[in-house]
Amino acid sequence: MRYHPRMLERISEAGTAEGVRERRFDIVRPEGRVPGVLWTPEQAGSATPLVLLGHGGAGHKRDESRLERAHAYVRRYGIAAAAIDGPYHGDRAARGREQRYDATVAGEMVGDWQATLDALLDLGEFDEDRVGYGGVSMGTMFGLPFLVADGRIRAAVLGLCGVRSSARTEDSLFARLVRDAPRLACPTLFLMQWDDELFDREGVLALFDLLGSADKRLYANPGGHAETPQHVRDLGLEFIAAQLLA
Amino acid sequence: MRYHPRMLERISEAGTAEGVRERRFDIVRPEGRVPGVLWTPEQAGSATPLVLLGHGGAGHKRDESRLERAHAYVRRYGIAAAAIDGPYHGDRAARGREQRYDATVAGEMVGDWQATLDALLDLGEFDEDRVGYGGVSMGTMFGLPFLVADGRIRAAVLGLCGVRSSARTEDSLFARLVRDAPRLACPTLFLMQWDDELFDREGVLALFDLLGSADKRLYANPGGHAETPQHVRDLGLEFIAAQLLA
Repeated sequence: MRYHPRMLERISEAGTAEGVRERRFDIVRPEGRVPGVLWTPEQAGSATPLVLLGHGGAGHKRDESRLERAHAYVRRYGIAAAAIDGPYHGDRAARGREQRYDATVAGEMVGDWQATLDALLDLGEFDEDRVGYGGVSMGTMFGLPFLVADGRIRAAVLGLCGVRSSARTEDSLFARLVRDAPRLACPTLFLMQWDDELFDREGVLALFDLLGSADKRLYANPGGHAETPQHVRDLGLEFIAAQLLA
Repeated sequence: MRYHPRMLERISEAGTAEGVRERRFDIVRPEGRVPGVLWTPEQAGSATPLVLLGHGGAGHKRDESRLERAHAYVRRYGIAAAAIDGPYHGDRAARGREQRYDATVAGEMVGDWQATLDALLDLGEFDEDRVGYGGVSMGTMFGLPFLVADGRIRAAVLGLCGVRSSARTEDSLFARLVRDAPRLACPTLFLMQWDDELFDREGVLALFDLLGSADKRLYANPGGHAETPQHVRDLGLEFIAAQLLA
């Protein structure tokens, strides 16, 4: 266990499997502790590229998809990965607050991610010029405002999100997305499920249309919100890797 | 020069460059001669996969894009490529008929492609179970009806086309596209330019929506009709190769 002067209160080894070293950490913020997981190559250099993984609704920092992607980034590309629990998710689920997604929660998550990135870069292991972000659905609702607010992210995979939703999400959050989207600047792969039952087709296309990035790519496949095919996941990894390793 | 009993009237060596063997051929049809080009690996096996390349409006069988793609297929993947001049294009341009795209022309092109594929498979060099098609814009207007009529194509790259256009194209052609699209069955990557000035956004999305293929993938990028980025071209090649070489 290591104590860190700034925001990284605790970081501890969680084990190494198949060449992937996993560490648990907590970020201390005025609003509370933010639990996270860091995955790095077992044999890491001093300036490893890093991708931040935002989980979806009902997911958490170490759900199956996060774990699968993190291992793929590390093992295929030598890119480190980190994930944190979003508000009301994972280890932060038991705080007794009602689960609503609104602009206030998005603002908290922006702070969580910024503090996390600060702390991770302070470790001295990562290349601050090669940081990516991948997160769809709730990972885009909260990730897009972070990317726009922070400016350190060089490539992003976003999507499964639009300018409105049939899921329980406040208008204030979508108002923020619509306001933030034109300010996005990094190369972005935007994923869409053509038959998404939570985000209507026109609303998803409208959000893609609003994105300010000169290099933005829409990739749509048939199926519902939770039916993203495996080849799409691979394409997301390839996109981030191509951008960060170029 | 070699004479062929069926429709391949003439095939002749045009040279070999960088490991790519090029041959010129003519297909004899009641409506006239169809000139084509065939590119194969210099050291080819007996069951080489084959991709048919449909050119765009004002293009021809051996325009810059066809040549670039053909060489890429052969050199990167060992996949053979063939292209023919569409009606009123390339060596067929001087017939004095007005250049209009309608259902009749599309029907001619279906016959041209079917005769070409018959003749090429008769050469005994290609694997009839691994034939792909790549063609956008006019290459989709004429290619989609061919794919639906023929059924031998196992993977396709289509796009830059919708259910209507601001370019000079007859309604009868779009009526055929709308009728044929739901009958398309092969895995298809459908390319779109988000700011296409010839095919409006909603009309392009409507055509993608109509495609019957269970595996269909929409990939859209910013820019006008003729501004497809290089990475999209690479993705098209990768898609065909993954399908034919799986």
